[in-house]
Amino acid sequence: MANPILVEVTRGETVESVHRGAIAIADARGKIVFSLGEIDTPVFPRSSLKMVQALPLVESGAADAFGLTSEHIALACASHSGESMHTERAAAWLAKIGCAESDLACGAHPSRVESIAEAMIKRGEKPTRIFNNCSGKHTGFLTVCRHWDVAVNGYEKHDYPVQVAVARALGELSGVGGELPYGVDGCVAPAFALPIAAFARALAKFADPSLLAKPRADAMARITAAMIAHPELVAGTGRIDTVLMRAAKGRVAIKAGAEGYFAAIVPEAGLGIAMKVDDGASRASETMIAAVLDKLGLVPDEKEAREFLRAPIRNTRNEIVGERRPAPALAGADIAAL
Amino acid sequence: MANPILVEVTRGETVESVHRGAIAIADARGKIVFSLGEIDTPVFPRSSLKMVQALPLVESGAADAFGLTSEHIALACASHSGESMHTERAAAWLAKIGCAESDLACGAHPSRVESIAEAMIKRGEKPTRIFNNCSGKHTGFLTVCRHWDVAVNGYEKHDYPVQVAVARALGELSGVGGELPYGVDGCVAPAFALPIAAFARALAKFADPSLLAKPRADAMARITAAMIAHPELVAGTGRIDTVLMRAAKGRVAIKAGAEGYFAAIVPEAGLGIAMKVDDGASRASETMIAAVLDKLGLVPDEKEAREFLRAPIRNTRNEIVGERRPAPALAGADIAAL
Repeated sequence: MANPILVEVTRGETVESVHRGAIAIADARGKIVFSLGEIDTPVFPRSSLKMVQALPLVESGAADAFGLTSEHIALACASHSGESMHTERAAAWLAKIGCAESDLACGAHPSRVESIAEAMIKRGEKPTRIFNNCSGKHTGFLTVCRHWDVAVNGYEKHDYPVQVAVARALGELSGVGGELPYGVDGCVAPAFALPIAAFARALAKFADPSLLAKPRADAMARITAAMIAHPELVAGTGRIDTVLMRAAKGRVAIKAGAEGYFAAIVPEAGLGIAMKVDDGASRASETMIAAVLDKLGLVPDEKEAREFLRAPIRNTRNEIVGERRPAPALAGADIAAL
Repeated sequence: MANPILVEVTRGETVESVHRGAIAIADARGKIVFSLGEIDTPVFPRSSLKMVQALPLVESGAADAFGLTSEHIALACASHSGESMHTERAAAWLAKIGCAESDLACGAHPSRVESIAEAMIKRGEKPTRIFNNCSGKHTGFLTVCRHWDVAVNGYEKHDYPVQVAVARALGELSGVGGELPYGVDGCVAPAFALPIAAFARALAKFADPSLLAKPRADAMARITAAMIAHPELVAGTGRIDTVLMRAAKGRVAIKAGAEGYFAAIVPEAGLGIAMKVDDGASRASETMIAAVLDKLGLVPDEKEAREFLRAPIRNTRNEIVGERRPAPALAGADIAAL
């Protein structure tokens, strides 16, 4: 059975392209309260996993041992845009733990902000590893290594203590037993795969950790609060995660992942939301997360936020020639009743 | 009924994303000799339409009146990379017809070649309209206006004589009656929509125009020959159209279109091939066209060409972490027997 068409892209009066996908919403007891499509096949949350990848940092006591603030924790959960607010914080954090940029295992890529990338080209500067959107996550891994007093070299390997701790936490929170399928992420860290339903359950525990034992429950609540407190650090200027979190005024934490993934934590409702676009298009996952949050009453009437819901398609003269919008199966989904 | 999964993208041992799509192969008599998926719904060929958009240029006598060569005709069919071989030829052509760059209706965008785009940023130069990948097509439209002695202003409008001629030719070649659905393309010219099956029939007539009346048949053969003679003008250095046309040594003309379209003309077999990825991903249409041409024996054992067939996915350290490949429904398709 194919997943339903959830997003459509039009040109003039004609639908030009469509995106299929799956969505699961779970509560903290593990009940799936809403779903669309196939939610039991393992897929990679990619960067939507970052709140779990930040868990050993907080749970181990490493964050407190190094005097980290909620800004550091938000940056550990970030796929940041490589703005100075991100790179300067990551660099200062590396210095704080006695590490250098060369200790980061991730590769370099340019800032996502065109004006920053262009200014660097003009100055003849090459982007370095600190510009990698995952440099905060990697600095978090390094902090755990320092705290546990193990070598930093090799921290990105699947069987290194900090990665084993991530995998164990993910298994426990999602309820998936045995070794999770894994691959190598764009940033070189391990990428784990699990069903959308299972990851929604893990996210619901972030939304309501009250059923969990104390140190973990506190760590999870602190991570969610850090993301919500610093939307601009989790992504960047104009990015959907940042814009929708700001617009929701503290009511939701959201995190994009590559290849069309999105995760959301809704503390007030005790809900976790996970979704994936079959074809990996982030343009579609942006429409999907905006539509789901809108149905939950979390997207206020602000132009910048609502443009993710129905996004104009423009030609090279910047004229609107079509739009990206929820398809009927998503637009008509009965999520409001949750 | 959903279209079949034709391309899959892996990470480690896990399939991360999949792409669905449809393919039609027709002969010059209009028979569909092979198909996969739904081929009777109107979709936009986008830039895969350029050989038809170049038809009035040649058929009207405008090309000969202005002494255009096969290079000009190839450039009229191009989605070029904005390399100097493209922009200088387009600029000289504009001068030849007494037009200026400001007569082009398309918007500007940077060259697709990173080193060219970066060098322009360093020099503080902004890309101008001549860098638009469609500047050759637009110069072709302007040439027809000059030849017909009509104003150039407004040539991009759907009801302007040169666009009416394109629509009429497309209707005649594809066998689709009545007005075709249309929208505005990225380059501001009209984008027409028609079924994949119908466009495959039109492409088959380019492959074998022998059943058509003389002036049109000659014009079509000349356009196909121009594309085949100048693969580097039709796209650019390292691009799939250029690489696969070169590798096939004159046996096929191919043309990508935005949102996951691909068109191919195989003169020796009298076949036209059209395909579209449902979700609009060009990474998938690249795998699809490479797989279909490979089955027809048109992709020789050359590394650069065969990498489009099974394309490595790399992380930010340039290590291979997965691959993009034909899914079973495409890998196992019985096209070789044609």
